[in-house]
Amino acid sequence: MQQYFVNGNAEQLVTIEDKDTIKHMFNVMRLTEGDEVVLVFDDAIKRLAKVADSSAHQFEVLKELDSNVEMPVQVTIASGFPKGDKLDLVTQKATELGAAAIWAFPADWSVVKWDGKKLAKKEDKLAKIALGAAEQSKRNRVPEVRLFEKKAGFVVSLSDFDKIFIAYEESAKAGELSALAQHLQTVQAGQKLLFIFGPEGGISPKEIETFEKAGAIKVGLGPRIMRTETAPFYALSAVSFATEMMGK
Amino acid sequence: MQQYFVNGNAEQLVTIEDKDTIKHMFNVMRLTEGDEVVLVFDDAIKRLAKVADSSAHQFEVLKELDSNVEMPVQVTIASGFPKGDKLDLVTQKATELGAAAIWAFPADWSVVKWDGKKLAKKEDKLAKIALGAAEQSKRNRVPEVRLFEKKAGFVVSLSDFDKIFIAYEESAKAGELSALAQHLQTVQAGQKLLFIFGPEGGISPKEIETFEKAGAIKVGLGPRIMRTETAPFYALSAVSFATEMMGK
Repeated sequence: MQQYFVNGNAEQLVTIEDKDTIKHMFNVMRLTEGDEVVLVFDDAIKRLAKVADSSAHQFEVLKELDSNVEMPVQVTIASGFPKGDKLDLVTQKATELGAAAIWAFPADWSVVKWDGKKLAKKEDKLAKIALGAAEQSKRNRVPEVRLFEKKAGFVVSLSDFDKIFIAYEESAKAGELSALAQHLQTVQAGQKLLFIFGPEGGISPKEIETFEKAGAIKVGLGPRIMRTETAPFYALSAVSFATEMMGK
Repeated sequence: MQQYFVNGNAEQLVTIEDKDTIKHMFNVMRLTEGDEVVLVFDDAIKRLAKVADSSAHQFEVLKELDSNVEMPVQVTIASGFPKGDKLDLVTQKATELGAAAIWAFPADWSVVKWDGKKLAKKEDKLAKIALGAAEQSKRNRVPEVRLFEKKAGFVVSLSDFDKIFIAYEESAKAGELSALAQHLQTVQAGQKLLFIFGPEGGISPKEIETFEKAGAIKVGLGPRIMRTETAPFYALSAVSFATEMMGK
């Protein structure tokens, strides 16, 4: 069944205000009176709802659904600005793979320069991709999308996390393969995890130092070299496997 | 260092015959006498080599390198033909994530129809993508790319595998999350694993029955709904995590 995220709190009668949502509901899906959808409000609970008045874009909320597909831990991925549209792919797939937030920051070795206006436009586009992917993958929450204009702002945010991992190619090359698995054994439900990924050129030694001072740990993600946009898929899948699939 | 796959066996002096490889070596990378690269022959061993004669495209093999990044198990992913160019992305990322083979077959609910000539062209394109991705991710082997024209051919090949998993959305919805983790605990080095993924519309009940008769097991890949092209990334990452990262 089609799912939509709606800003605000659940009430018995809800009027949809968001233009893109209205367009998808009534032009693309051609919903009419009595048609049922799933609505997800700010409380992240899925609710069955039916169209009460299609011209007024009004729904009657019928009941809460018992479906929570969010990971037991909140995983944020943060990429050094990669080239081109790679963040589009990262955002869509990371949303499907369960990310709580998708961040990016201007890394020392990022080639692209995104300034205020361009950055805001890009963030807006990525937020739409995350919303669409969250609806398709039946998430309870839309991942936060955040592009930092300055690296300093990103570094300040590091203190919000319980564990910070740096995806580090050299660790993989050196045969270091167990650190991530060991750390994931100790995470507890509700904890906030951050994975930091370099841009195409990697993470600079100075950045490594900064992140390590903030408590970050270098980890390998298997022995193979992955492109910058592929490594987050591995990290999110590994966290899901370790926290959602093992020992269940 | 740049890596290239070369057909044939290693000898002390090697002349490169493949036109695309020659072009990349001497036009794109502009290699000259004395420049070093890594060559990987049919035996999957990486060897350091240096240009002996650039106009003759000849290399001198210097020594074997101790680098094997192949998974301890051989994982084949098989997708029901998906729409558009999705197999391009699957092939590139699955190669980076360590797949031994990337297969696709005409599933009951595949929308696209690829006939003999188109299929051959597509397979050729995907093989080139796999080769490029295998060189970039420093694999020891190039994954096999194989598009089955008839599903019967695919079904016959099922007997080659030690374990067959069907990525099954309904298993995930029903809360079945542990089967894959349990099975991955029992796999042994050298075993051949197959993961079957449906096209956009999913796998038909008749196909499920056929695959189960051949010994396949339905498994969920986490509780979220993934697009058909995303599920292989999860499966490959999970196998890597279970067989390469845990207990090391």
